[in-house]
Amino acid sequence: MQTVKVDLGQRSYNIFVGEGILSAAGDLLKRAGIKGKLAVVTNSTVAQLYLDPVHDALQSSGFEVIPILIPDGEEYKTLSTLSTIFDRLISERFERQSCLVALGGGVVGDIAGFAAATYLRGMPFVQIPTTLLAQVDSSVGGKTGVNHSRGKNLIGAFYQPRAVIIDVALLSSLPRRELVAGLAEVIKYGIIEDPVLFGGLEEKLDRILVLDRRLLTEVIATSCAIKARVIEKDEREDDHRAVLNFGHTVGHALEAATHYRKYLHGEAVAIGMAKAAAISYQQGFCDAKTLGRIIKLIKMAGLSTEIPQEVSTQSLIEGMELDKKSADGKVKFVVCTAIGKTCFHLLTAEQIAAALGK
Amino acid sequence: MQTVKVDLGQRSYNIFVGEGILSAAGDLLKRAGIKGKLAVVTNSTVAQLYLDPVHDALQSSGFEVIPILIPDGEEYKTLSTLSTIFDRLISERFERQSCLVALGGGVVGDIAGFAAATYLRGMPFVQIPTTLLAQVDSSVGGKTGVNHSRGKNLIGAFYQPRAVIIDVALLSSLPRRELVAGLAEVIKYGIIEDPVLFGGLEEKLDRILVLDRRLLTEVIATSCAIKARVIEKDEREDDHRAVLNFGHTVGHALEAATHYRKYLHGEAVAIGMAKAAAISYQQGFCDAKTLGRIIKLIKMAGLSTEIPQEVSTQSLIEGMELDKKSADGKVKFVVCTAIGKTCFHLLTAEQIAAALGK
Repeated sequence: MQTVKVDLGQRSYNIFVGEGILSAAGDLLKRAGIKGKLAVVTNSTVAQLYLDPVHDALQSSGFEVIPILIPDGEEYKTLSTLSTIFDRLISERFERQSCLVALGGGVVGDIAGFAAATYLRGMPFVQIPTTLLAQVDSSVGGKTGVNHSRGKNLIGAFYQPRAVIIDVALLSSLPRRELVAGLAEVIKYGIIEDPVLFGGLEEKLDRILVLDRRLLTEVIATSCAIKARVIEKDEREDDHRAVLNFGHTVGHALEAATHYRKYLHGEAVAIGMAKAAAISYQQGFCDAKTLGRIIKLIKMAGLSTEIPQEVSTQSLIEGMELDKKSADGKVKFVVCTAIGKTCFHLLTAEQIAAALGK
Repeated sequence: MQTVKVDLGQRSYNIFVGEGILSAAGDLLKRAGIKGKLAVVTNSTVAQLYLDPVHDALQSSGFEVIPILIPDGEEYKTLSTLSTIFDRLISERFERQSCLVALGGGVVGDIAGFAAATYLRGMPFVQIPTTLLAQVDSSVGGKTGVNHSRGKNLIGAFYQPRAVIIDVALLSSLPRRELVAGLAEVIKYGIIEDPVLFGGLEEKLDRILVLDRRLLTEVIATSCAIKARVIEKDEREDDHRAVLNFGHTVGHALEAATHYRKYLHGEAVAIGMAKAAAISYQQGFCDAKTLGRIIKLIKMAGLSTEIPQEVSTQSLIEGMELDKKSADGKVKFVVCTAIGKTCFHLLTAEQIAAALGK
């Protein structure tokens, strides 16, 4: 098991990464100082696979466990679902010293984290992410929230978990399409911060795709450590944290333009990264070789690098405008200057669309 | 004008207290570093009285101002009203650098503050409280939130404003019943922290009741300073901040038992303080003279000190049980040991009810 510390003063916590560590969840929670009654928030799909083992692992460590099921799907990441979680927490008499455990992918983690952030103005919570995307991205860093009909994650809070428990064995039940989509974020960490990780992926991507668990543990722990270092510098995305949005400006716009139906988040981010790299090259920030390596690695993972013809310029611009990273009407666009290096470049949505040749 | 600094590191802010300072609101916002577009959240009643002057004061300092009206009343402090505020913020394209101004009493401040805490995971906000209760209590300290059908303020966040602007001239439009109810919290500050404030109230309460503005400025600034010092020690109510709940355990239970219809918050707190003082005396924490002075001052303000016959023990116990200050089934009850001194005493809801002779 590897332990990655996220150092945020009083809000510091550990990310535990390993194979089969789900069975030790109770002990890990105790190590994180959790004492109270536990609400395990999960969805029906994940519950069938992992609720029993998680329940047993926690109960055998002496915890009282109350499962709270929410429907499966991004369309349920709403204030309305949040309200049903509050109803259960209240009727089960959860207190400020109780703890909420998020068991699932990004949707479960985001909404459960926001429930924990706002129930009685904040209760402890722990993430047990079950998808690669959640393991390397959404479960780390404290972004929680729900969607609004006009945009994703428009309502939420920065709220750090007390611990993150990442069991790579859970990935064996993950559909391959979701595994591949999660890899987009791993590739992103290489591009923005770590040429060694990027080089490792170029060499060993095939072994990751067949779920080599030692390699997965290493790559996931490295990804979490990179995200942790970024967050330690800038927890609330006042400045530097925006580097994590590499590929996300266009990615988000593409998700919005296709009504969140065509792409998984990572798939849209992959295209967004290819386009961000292309813009970086076009505008003289990086050389052709860097662009070539990025495009090649994304394709090797089995991800697309192109925006489909049918997506209009106007719909992409609209998607970017409501993106909450906008400042004074301009987007803080992340360009890469080399593998492992980035800088910010203020662009309007129109300038980005023009650069895309849209 | 008096300035009370709330020192919370990066989240520090100033409370400005004075007569007629509403007209300087724009400058005060600039001093607080506010730059963006402003949403002024208020209710229909307050809007009629003060929206125009606030709008003019802000606009004359160069701010773009968008009013957002919510219905007047505690029954609208809900997730549903919150959702309508989000809709407006999104349709008016508010960004993370914009600012939300809460203009109103506690309900407006709590819900607007929670909207600011959670819109795009946090935007700057400023409080302009218009009731005495909000001026001395709810606008200071960062407690924000909404009610749930099962209890008050069960959903919310700790989120500090960037500034609080308290214009005592606004109190001239406040119904006398609300003024008197607000005095309960002022008396509380005397009981828990400040014998000089308490003694001053014993001497000059009549002048406050006829709205002597110099005296109001002094008493409100003192109250805010006491609350600021408590919050600086314990922002998130892990321990010491609970001292502010003196009188609130029974007060909240009484409000709940009477379905929030019979009492204004301060009126219920007044009775709660009288009962907390009685319990303090009964259990040997304070002497009869202290109890006598507290009861006398509450009555001088025109507030009741007795729980009505028709309120049942059971309903009071139920009100206390769902109170979020409970820890392991016990309530951290605040007793006073002298004027200006308190300590905590862990009691079950049943023990408190028994002590009340209910």
